[in-house]
Amino acid sequence: MSLPAEPDHALAASLFSQLAAQSHDGAGITRDSYGDGENAAHALLAAAATSRGLEVRRDAASNLYLTLPGTARDAPAVMTGSHLDSVPRGGNYDGAAGVLAGLAILAGWRRAGVVPARDVTVMAIRAEESAWFPVSYVGSKAAFGLLDAAALEARRADTGRTLAEHLRASGGRPEPVAAGVPALHAAGIDCFVELHIEQGPVLEEGGDVLGAVTGICGSQRYRHAVICGQYAHSGATPRSHRRDAVVAVASLIMALQQAWVALEAAGHELTVTVGQCMTDAAQADFSKVAGRVSFSIDMRSRSLATLEAMDAAVQTARAEVARTCGVEIDLGPVTTSSPAAMDATLLRLLTDAAAHTGVTMRTMPSGAGHDAALFSAQGVPAAMLFVRNANGSHNPEESMRLDDFAQATRVLASVLGTRAGLPGSACSFPTRSSTNTCQSV
Amino acid sequence: MSLPAEPDHALAASLFSQLAAQSHDGAGITRDSYGDGENAAHALLAAAATSRGLEVRRDAASNLYLTLPGTARDAPAVMTGSHLDSVPRGGNYDGAAGVLAGLAILAGWRRAGVVPARDVTVMAIRAEESAWFPVSYVGSKAAFGLLDAAALEARRADTGRTLAEHLRASGGRPEPVAAGVPALHAAGIDCFVELHIEQGPVLEEGGDVLGAVTGICGSQRYRHAVICGQYAHSGATPRSHRRDAVVAVASLIMALQQAWVALEAAGHELTVTVGQCMTDAAQADFSKVAGRVSFSIDMRSRSLATLEAMDAAVQTARAEVARTCGVEIDLGPVTTSSPAAMDATLLRLLTDAAAHTGVTMRTMPSGAGHDAALFSAQGVPAAMLFVRNANGSHNPEESMRLDDFAQATRVLASVLGTRAGLPGSACSFPTRSSTNTCQSV
Repeated sequence: MSLPAEPDHALAASLFSQLAAQSHDGAGITRDSYGDGENAAHALLAAAATSRGLEVRRDAASNLYLTLPGTARDAPAVMTGSHLDSVPRGGNYDGAAGVLAGLAILAGWRRAGVVPARDVTVMAIRAEESAWFPVSYVGSKAAFGLLDAAALEARRADTGRTLAEHLRASGGRPEPVAAGVPALHAAGIDCFVELHIEQGPVLEEGGDVLGAVTGICGSQRYRHAVICGQYAHSGATPRSHRRDAVVAVASLIMALQQAWVALEAAGHELTVTVGQCMTDAAQADFSKVAGRVSFSIDMRSRSLATLEAMDAAVQTARAEVARTCGVEIDLGPVTTSSPAAMDATLLRLLTDAAAHTGVTMRTMPSGAGHDAALFSAQGVPAAMLFVRNANGSHNPEESMRLDDFAQATRVLASVLGTRAGLPGSACSFPTRSSTNTCQSV
Repeated sequence: MSLPAEPDHALAASLFSQLAAQSHDGAGITRDSYGDGENAAHALLAAAATSRGLEVRRDAASNLYLTLPGTARDAPAVMTGSHLDSVPRGGNYDGAAGVLAGLAILAGWRRAGVVPARDVTVMAIRAEESAWFPVSYVGSKAAFGLLDAAALEARRADTGRTLAEHLRASGGRPEPVAAGVPALHAAGIDCFVELHIEQGPVLEEGGDVLGAVTGICGSQRYRHAVICGQYAHSGATPRSHRRDAVVAVASLIMALQQAWVALEAAGHELTVTVGQCMTDAAQADFSKVAGRVSFSIDMRSRSLATLEAMDAAVQTARAEVARTCGVEIDLGPVTTSSPAAMDATLLRLLTDAAAHTGVTMRTMPSGAGHDAALFSAQGVPAAMLFVRNANGSHNPEESMRLDDFAQATRVLASVLGTRAGLPGSACSFPTRSSTNTCQSV
């Protein structure tokens, strides 16, 4: 494989170290959305880009854009990037890896004097982690002028201050954001390719270095479901007289597991999770039949039809368990997000680039949501590249190897270079299915 | 049926009202063990007994004894009674019914000039509800000199003061209690018959007024069991890669239910309850596979063999679920209490008395523990008489009808009268199986 220029791997390694040093909280990494942690990360990246001769720009939502100008500056730009915030006591790689990979690529090209045919931009997106504000995709929504004005009044979980206050204190301007003034237009974007660590164990345990994402799961969630039975004396109440909320929730959970297995056997791809399940701390006792259990259900799939099929199974199980256990089951409000398709051409470019690089890659869905889903929903051809990572994400034990990251960065560089019309990129990656030339991509 | 004299039902009704008035806490009834609530109840009962010409005595543990002297004062006494304390925000009848029934009987006899052949004593037992001190049967254990000296250093859940401090403030003397000086000797007791409201729905729903207890359940409990799996991203972690503590606890609960059903089908009598089941409030999230669940298991039966069979099923399920779900299951420390047999002769007397009174009665186990179990364990012939009661116990909605209570009091009076050699009692209740005369009972 020949790249137009090698990414600046040393820069990425150095920035990972500096990010870790400046955002270590004693236990893990904390880069709070629109707070000191995220702001410091943005400042670090902006300074690094400036010193490497890249264009640096911010929008009203204080998203950061680092651009290597192309020859046709008004042609739709090739974009990459991810977010720089983290959950509280999280890891150093979730989000940051995608921004650092993009910057390493542009810095390498700039150093080598490479000039792409069109702009290539790395976007450092704000506030992707909903642990801070109860709103998803704050930065990318705001960039497209799509953030609900009411979201600016949402309060951060820890500080209690509004998003508007935090945004202003981070150098942004809430007014254009509230007015829906867009900084990005789908028509002005050739593609968006996001590199991200894998947040599950599939690559690590399967022995693959990279994952090309086939689609980003949508979700259907019951976050505040409740089963009401009847508290009763554990010794004095025969089974026939019980309305046991714990037995009911156990029955429901097993029914959901069986439905999941059956759907997978029928070819569906999904996850089903009861992550919270709690008897009442004040009222429950080891010597009482439980009268109340609260629990959550999280269903995710790339297919709306699959989500609908699983939800039908939930409804059936709800009715059946309520009847057989003599309890009331209130699933509470449902929240949904739509699945996002990834672009087939970009997926093929990723697959081919990995093959040429000689790095193992598998295709896989993304169960987690990502900003790339927002770009896809706006009609921007989008793709994601996962890097293997042990121990999951959202914890200090995230464990991406820098060697894997370097391979991923090379693959990303190839795809971005192809899309940006760089010599040495496109020709290395002919599409499988046609005789299209580089120029026609 | 002819009783030697009718119980003083009006006295009982009046005392129920006075108890409710003096121990209402705004939401329910609170008579705190060795505190103002229980002390006031003891004072009320002592004053009522004194004014009716009964002997009143207290032991070092401040248990209260109300006695109608018999002609043979050194003959083993006939005893009845129960406890006067309640759980916080409990009901008016759990415990108090047994003491008031005994006092109503003695007051009726005293008023009619009835003199039994031996002493008949109503015992108002201290601190039966373990909601206050983490010790079971404080009062009856202390009366037999069996209370562990260390228990006197146990602290009350709400005040944080020791049992010794509370006992002294309630007019008792901790030193003889700690030294194990007994106030009661099994050899000096002819029998102990405890009247109590039923704490479950069996009588109410079966249309029976009374229950004659066949035995008091022993228990085997795992109060602090924990399942450790692994927290993981709910969307990014396929089922095959999960170590889901919630699915594991649901599987375990269903296995325990199945084992319970199978044991009942094989003729065993028991209850199995998971009353507490909680994911970690700080770490669990709707979007995470659960890594930890804490839960309790409470098994009760009149038969040690049944408890052992059920525990074997728990161990089998534990191993199977740990293996199939990839989790660790630590059941934690086990606590046990022994089943207590009820006296067959007393049970027959209760059954016959109910039949003669024309009140419906069924035989049933007591799933809950009672002081009668402690008497039984000391070798005292013991029995229990349940009165139907809607809505369970340990809550303000306890709902015993005074008509039912009056019927129960008459049945209790007949049995006590028979054992105390009163004319008009024993002869009304010939034993079924023999030609025994009244004197030989």
